[in-house]
Amino acid sequence: MTKTGVALLGLGTVGGGTYRILKNNYESIKLNYGVDIEIRHIIEKDMKKVQELGVDGSIVSCDIENVINDPEIKIVAEFFGGIEPAKSYIIKCLLAGKTVVTANKEMFAKYWHELQRAAKKGRAGLYFEASCVGGVPIIRTLTESMQGNNILCIMGIVNGTTNYILSKMADEGLEYKDVLKEAQKLGYAEQDPTADVEGYDSMYKLSILSSLAFHTRVPVDKIYREGISSISKTDIEFGKRFGYTLKLLAIGKRTHDNKIEVRVHPAFISNKHPLAAVKGSFNAVHILGDNVGDIMLYGRGAGDLPTGSAIVSDIVYAAQQRKHEYTSFRNTLSSPSKYFSKDFECEYYIRMTVKDLPGVIASVSSVFGRLKISINSIQQELMGDKAYVIFMLHKTHESAVKKAMSQIEKLSVVESVDSIIRVE
Amino acid sequence: MTKTGVALLGLGTVGGGTYRILKNNYESIKLNYGVDIEIRHIIEKDMKKVQELGVDGSIVSCDIENVINDPEIKIVAEFFGGIEPAKSYIIKCLLAGKTVVTANKEMFAKYWHELQRAAKKGRAGLYFEASCVGGVPIIRTLTESMQGNNILCIMGIVNGTTNYILSKMADEGLEYKDVLKEAQKLGYAEQDPTADVEGYDSMYKLSILSSLAFHTRVPVDKIYREGISSISKTDIEFGKRFGYTLKLLAIGKRTHDNKIEVRVHPAFISNKHPLAAVKGSFNAVHILGDNVGDIMLYGRGAGDLPTGSAIVSDIVYAAQQRKHEYTSFRNTLSSPSKYFSKDFECEYYIRMTVKDLPGVIASVSSVFGRLKISINSIQQELMGDKAYVIFMLHKTHESAVKKAMSQIEKLSVVESVDSIIRVE
Repeated sequence: MTKTGVALLGLGTVGGGTYRILKNNYESIKLNYGVDIEIRHIIEKDMKKVQELGVDGSIVSCDIENVINDPEIKIVAEFFGGIEPAKSYIIKCLLAGKTVVTANKEMFAKYWHELQRAAKKGRAGLYFEASCVGGVPIIRTLTESMQGNNILCIMGIVNGTTNYILSKMADEGLEYKDVLKEAQKLGYAEQDPTADVEGYDSMYKLSILSSLAFHTRVPVDKIYREGISSISKTDIEFGKRFGYTLKLLAIGKRTHDNKIEVRVHPAFISNKHPLAAVKGSFNAVHILGDNVGDIMLYGRGAGDLPTGSAIVSDIVYAAQQRKHEYTSFRNTLSSPSKYFSKDFECEYYIRMTVKDLPGVIASVSSVFGRLKISINSIQQELMGDKAYVIFMLHKTHESAVKKAMSQIEKLSVVESVDSIIRVE
Repeated sequence: MTKTGVALLGLGTVGGGTYRILKNNYESIKLNYGVDIEIRHIIEKDMKKVQELGVDGSIVSCDIENVINDPEIKIVAEFFGGIEPAKSYIIKCLLAGKTVVTANKEMFAKYWHELQRAAKKGRAGLYFEASCVGGVPIIRTLTESMQGNNILCIMGIVNGTTNYILSKMADEGLEYKDVLKEAQKLGYAEQDPTADVEGYDSMYKLSILSSLAFHTRVPVDKIYREGISSISKTDIEFGKRFGYTLKLLAIGKRTHDNKIEVRVHPAFISNKHPLAAVKGSFNAVHILGDNVGDIMLYGRGAGDLPTGSAIVSDIVYAAQQRKHEYTSFRNTLSSPSKYFSKDFECEYYIRMTVKDLPGVIASVSSVFGRLKISINSIQQELMGDKAYVIFMLHKTHESAVKKAMSQIEKLSVVESVDSIIRVE
């Protein structure tokens, strides 16, 4: 059995997890998968991390040329995160014929084309299972198990931080700010939580997942994005009463007119939907294929060992390949309006604070009526000294909802429109 | 692009589904996966099926030699089910260098070794994603996504018929016999339902899944098997009160002393476990890996198109391979007691009908006490004119429970031991 030389770029959380898995499972990987993985070089400047993991210092440096110039290194796993120097290093490695394995969703979502071009040129592999939903094998499922399907919808809870926050808000009746603070203290949320709570992280993952699902490059800027920072516990509470759970969802759909609709936003889903039961920091992705029907994959979307598990899976897989396959995409950038839907249709939950006067419902309903928006149900609720009305709307276009809201806000009986939340 | 010739052995439910998927997705498979799949021959004697699917009659026959002798046929998908003639045909095909794709769990579970030997000899591939849990990519997950894990436990609801029956018993408070009759009428259960309800089907699947999970051949006869035909609605009802759902589970575990424990039986699981939410004819498999943690795959375990989707996935996958990988197993048959645990440990739910007399609980408890079986909780329940006592036991060996039961049955205060159900 020939050895497969591997380099690790970075020894942070996931890099460290990967190192430990490769070390601890060295024999079993050799025995069960017939590949002999040798860690030949590590790029890391923090010598404390190197020592903590018990890494032989002689294979550690800060110079990528040590990786590029070692012909025995066949696979490079990247853990820097962010765009640079990750991107330049990866491209160098690919052009030098080294297969790259990465967990870097932002860089991958933004520069997939460029990376794949370099990979083809260098006849190297490009693997990214760890970029989406940690140890859950969603990339492999999309690339190697759905060949007999047209995927109609992919819908996921792909960010653990926001799912932890929303679960805790729901279970303990807390407000967003308080849960966020606690999550930061416990290390579940970053000190600057923007990437998670405003949906950027989910957006990068959705770009990758929907590109694979629809065989069509879905650029990040085609994705509608809305975070959870303005969610109030009041809406979560009302949602519960109606049988709904609030989740930050990443959704990719094939529309009736064969366009792609991609969006990240908080949404109510029925408690009966399997995604509603995905709690805390767990992630899950639900796929609807025209032949396979509904399938769902569930697991930990982050963490040193779960994500390390996906990286190791890609390393072993890549080491077994004789020739690497590349993703084939339709080019969407030439005429994006042909491919992407903008004004998407949804059901809606709309909560407004109203004056406690007769005729409120009639006034609001007549606005919806004039715009041909069909109402599913109306609920009046008193909470403290506030009078709320909640409208549940049947499927309607976003543009129509916006128009309705601008008119409803002007009604004298309406004090404020507090929340507009989509229902899936 | 060179064509990949395929033969279908049988045009029944799954064979027909596969035919339709290959026909309808011909262009998209070519475009997205770079393989040109041509159905060159079909073995089927029922010409009605052939006509219903609009198959060109000239490629249909009853003679396997037409498949063997066509050098353009590279892949053979088998849908006969049962052992013969499936097994002989498959071995012939493999020895002739034709890759085989099969959904035949019984044959595969029983003759994997023999088939793999023939495959290696013929340098052919052997693929069986469709043998377990229909369109859910559980085989690919075990073979290509768990390389960095020691799997500690694999636990699944892998039979749709029994899950449908148990779900309906729970939701509507019906008895087993009544639900079975209805399921038979609706075509969800066979006229002879033994293979499903007595756990044989689950056992075959567990043999395959646990062999992959533990890299150790797990023969069917090493699996403890118990079906659902003696489950009463009373126990499902009591389980609900305690926060449990009853499922027919297929369980493979790595024990503390590094043995493998494999069993199929009805079991109570906590309503909080993600498997508890798997309803109706849906299937799911939960995996616990030492690095990835908990993951779960969920979807339809049967049906023409879901299972056809798995078959097509294997066909496309096989057509892309340049060299086929084989499963490597430790040989367990030489000293099975080294590998397989017999007297497994579980928590238990035990329901008995008792005389409504003082001292009942003391008498029963003292039997458990003498055998060092630790009791978790005791519940007395009156239902109609019956007095029940339900003991929930902490983890204990099966042999100890059996011993206890033989003593408890003899107690004068105990009328009958009605149910012994494991709790996972």
